[in-house]
Amino acid sequence: MTLTQKIQADFPILKQEINEKPLAYLDNAATSQKPKQVLDAVMKYYEWENANVHRGVHTLAARATDAYEGSRAKVARFIGARETAEIIFTRGTTTAINMIANGYGDANLQAGDEIVISHLEHHSNLIPWQQLAKRTGATLVYIELDADATITLANAAKVINEKTKIVAIAHVSNVIGSIAPVREIADLAHSVGAVIVVDGAQAVPHMKVDVLALDADFYAFSGHKMMAPTGIGALYGKRELLDAMNPTEFGGEMIDFVELHDSTWKELPWKMEAGTPNIAGAIGLGAAIDYLETIGFDLIHNHEEELTAYAMAEMQKLDGITIYGPLDATKRCGLITFNLEGAHPHDIATVLDEEGVAIRAGHHCAQPLMKWLDTSSTARVSFYVYNTKQEVDQFIAGLKLTKEYFGL
Amino acid sequence: MTLTQKIQADFPILKQEINEKPLAYLDNAATSQKPKQVLDAVMKYYEWENANVHRGVHTLAARATDAYEGSRAKVARFIGARETAEIIFTRGTTTAINMIANGYGDANLQAGDEIVISHLEHHSNLIPWQQLAKRTGATLVYIELDADATITLANAAKVINEKTKIVAIAHVSNVIGSIAPVREIADLAHSVGAVIVVDGAQAVPHMKVDVLALDADFYAFSGHKMMAPTGIGALYGKRELLDAMNPTEFGGEMIDFVELHDSTWKELPWKMEAGTPNIAGAIGLGAAIDYLETIGFDLIHNHEEELTAYAMAEMQKLDGITIYGPLDATKRCGLITFNLEGAHPHDIATVLDEEGVAIRAGHHCAQPLMKWLDTSSTARVSFYVYNTKQEVDQFIAGLKLTKEYFGL
Repeated sequence: MTLTQKIQADFPILKQEINEKPLAYLDNAATSQKPKQVLDAVMKYYEWENANVHRGVHTLAARATDAYEGSRAKVARFIGARETAEIIFTRGTTTAINMIANGYGDANLQAGDEIVISHLEHHSNLIPWQQLAKRTGATLVYIELDADATITLANAAKVINEKTKIVAIAHVSNVIGSIAPVREIADLAHSVGAVIVVDGAQAVPHMKVDVLALDADFYAFSGHKMMAPTGIGALYGKRELLDAMNPTEFGGEMIDFVELHDSTWKELPWKMEAGTPNIAGAIGLGAAIDYLETIGFDLIHNHEEELTAYAMAEMQKLDGITIYGPLDATKRCGLITFNLEGAHPHDIATVLDEEGVAIRAGHHCAQPLMKWLDTSSTARVSFYVYNTKQEVDQFIAGLKLTKEYFGL
Repeated sequence: MTLTQKIQADFPILKQEINEKPLAYLDNAATSQKPKQVLDAVMKYYEWENANVHRGVHTLAARATDAYEGSRAKVARFIGARETAEIIFTRGTTTAINMIANGYGDANLQAGDEIVISHLEHHSNLIPWQQLAKRTGATLVYIELDADATITLANAAKVINEKTKIVAIAHVSNVIGSIAPVREIADLAHSVGAVIVVDGAQAVPHMKVDVLALDADFYAFSGHKMMAPTGIGALYGKRELLDAMNPTEFGGEMIDFVELHDSTWKELPWKMEAGTPNIAGAIGLGAAIDYLETIGFDLIHNHEEELTAYAMAEMQKLDGITIYGPLDATKRCGLITFNLEGAHPHDIATVLDEEGVAIRAGHHCAQPLMKWLDTSSTARVSFYVYNTKQEVDQFIAGLKLTKEYFGL
């Protein structure tokens, strides 16, 4: 049994057949599958320690609080935060970015200021800034992409200037898979007094992220793309920024004193977590971190790079395939977006599904990038550490079948 | 085996011992335990159909979408909504109420308007309105409570007038357990052109709720208090109100078209659900509804009323116990808040925990009500359908021990 087969054996869902073919789940950029270690942690919580956190003096409440706050400590260590107070549990990346736009953006931006994003951004790192611009009178400015649809420092430097207050970019593009030069852009942003917000949804699952090394001011990611349950994610923020930031949700658990007409907030991180949190989700996120660290990001990254290089090489042997973004697998993070001349991406995905291969087709929540690529939609294949070379072969065979089926 | 014992057997967590005593979990108003039927539904999702919803054409994505949207249909039917478009999945009650305050409140309130709440409210149905009042210049007005700390129509009528734009009240108080006359207050609110927002967090788990019969404009509740997983809840809103309401989170899944500087939203309910939702949580919520409906709310309500009546009668035999709120169990929804003269609530909870009994002590996220009750904190025992008369006896025995321990 190879290491990949051993890993795959941890994922009950991957053992099934789809349309009488073995499932090849290659839609990991949309969401990942969960290993039994994560599911076991969630079940252990519900069967042994479920209670509301922070509130109770009884044994279950103490166990639940320890597990929940223990998970926060894991997240902090995992991404290199200085302290647990800098980790806010959220519903996911989308909620985290909206919190920054509302809690930091509204308090710090005014007419004439500029928010810098790129043509690559996922809608979750785009529409909150559009709305912030509308509310404050600030202007949304786009970093131009270079020829292979990636963000470069040179292009960032063309639009980051003294007017810039916020720079918000994806660490890894969910469409192109390219890795942005975050640290260099962070230095540039800081040199003009701006903060940098990093959408890490596609990065944290696949590579070692260190928020201090990146000098990110805010860093957001989702659990469900990194083997954790749905409905949980985290927002990292530098303490001084989070301290100064307004809560964006109000309710129980985040307050110190409540009078009839005014209230005061708890210290970090709790002032940002109103109401009962997704306790089981946070515990599952901690278990996912344990699982990923047991495998190690070197192995994860190398394995995905190998699959990507192999798949791109095989795809390029086929006529009519356009691969978007860099053709060098070392510049990608385990995903390939493409089109096949003469076939709609949805048709490709449908034929592949018949063959047991799950890929995604559409605009990938990145309509401006689709326009930039001069297409309305693309197909996307995305890998994780549990995928095998055999599954890539199954995908390539499916592509050949698609071509036959449509007479291409 | 009694029916209650049969039900209790569905809850793996309840079979354990705490401090070498059988666990008596009487902290259900904080959060409920989950039956294996709900845990199985969550596991089935992760082991059979986990994929991102709405986005994919492959088999798993179709299964996940069917399960997720199927759960929405269950929620709609469960609370009597006219259509599934009126059900928005949220992280919980807190998020739902904040959505209304931000999405409806900011657009519809101005200086001079009044928001009516009561002294009973949980912080989650209080601080969002304080903040809305601060942002808009509206005034927050409190319904006075009657002598047994409950909301009456007569007292509501004293403060609801032509200036009132929003009335926001708890259906069931999380401290007193009393049931508010929601329909009568809704009629009053509507007669002056106001909308009524109902915090249903403590009602939906314990009694049949029909939003049309109540004529609620908005109704919010949490899954975790009704046997569903953490991190999921729902907001009901009348279609015309939700249609006119602004989304409060922006990102993927909620858009139709995204241009560089502007975007358009999808139709309901999706325009209110940005980003990847808590898919497994929503499916678990559907399973919890199935479970509760199999038992039936008549049985649930009668059983809890019986336990409450029995517990109150036994408590009243002890010297030094103050029970807050009505002493008639039929006016309560399965919970009792009390103090024991000479013992701090935290000490009571600590002694009870030694005896395996989990109760809550503190301000119960209702500091204004604590002030109204002229205390800083109370102890609270709260029941669910799986609790037994033996557990009430265990609780009463624990109270007696507390009295002995402190020489009371």
